[in-house]
Amino acid sequence: MNHYDYMSLAMQEAKKALTSREIPIGAIIVLHDSVIAAAHNQCENRSDPTAHAEILAIKKASAILGNWRLTGCSLYVTIEPCPMCAGAAVNAHLSSIIYGAPNPWYGGIDSKFRIVQNPFNHAVSVIRGVCQSECQQLMDEFFDDKRHLSM
Amino acid sequence: MNHYDYMSLAMQEAKKALTSREIPIGAIIVLHDSVIAAAHNQCENRSDPTAHAEILAIKKASAILGNWRLTGCSLYVTIEPCPMCAGAAVNAHLSSIIYGAPNPWYGGIDSKFRIVQNPFNHAVSVIRGVCQSECQQLMDEFFDDKRHLSM
Repeated sequence: MNHYDYMSLAMQEAKKALTSREIPIGAIIVLHDSVIAAAHNQCENRSDPTAHAEILAIKKASAILGNWRLTGCSLYVTIEPCPMCAGAAVNAHLSSIIYGAPNPWYGGIDSKFRIVQNPFNHAVSVIRGVCQSECQQLMDEFFDDKRHLSM
Repeated sequence: MNHYDYMSLAMQEAKKALTSREIPIGAIIVLHDSVIAAAHNQCENRSDPTAHAEILAIKKASAILGNWRLTGCSLYVTIEPCPMCAGAAVNAHLSSIIYGAPNPWYGGIDSKFRIVQNPFNHAVSVIRGVCQSECQQLMDEFFDDKRHLSM
């Protein structure tokens, strides 16, 4: 499987969030070409501000491996992670992050902070823009709906 | 109770982490002068890179209030939060963070990133240096011990 195939799985997760009226962001974690964790944003349904797709996927992967170090693992996520999730990726010693669309307002990798690539801590490699327009479209659909409902 | 009293409770949590050979950082969350959550770092024992004191306390407080928004809540934490935890504080709409000692290598509030005070997202007010030397001493004790054991 290639980056597009894995991002398609992350988008499937994002669609689950959309169905349950959560902000549609999905994530998967891959180790040795196997998907070991998949999750979507569940902040509203869990009443938990930390229940972003990335955090839930990292927690699942760590539980499966029995280790907080996710060395060798890649995180695929539909939208550029926020500072919390970018920081979690560093703390987990993830090897790489592949994201879809940027988060211009609060991105923790490129857009507002550069948390995962710095000289003073574990560095995570980054690939940007995989399935960017499809990932963004899911977000637009959600926020267009919200605007429509509030009119 | 004042800031010193609340930070003493956070230090009691940090000492629990020290006893279980975790990095000694403790946190509590206060709402309307009541402590609604207390936690200490448990990354090793839970095999979870997100199990920092602050994240565990935020999750507990949200579960108790049944709401991911912790508006009006104050987080007391012995060490300056990392980017993951600073980001979680923003995501949770915490009103204030009171921390003890700085984290010069990876602090997400003042030392390396200024995540909680920015014009583009929820702003959290910050008080620094409450019980700074006692909070730092717990960290020094832990890392001195580790160095001693590895010699």
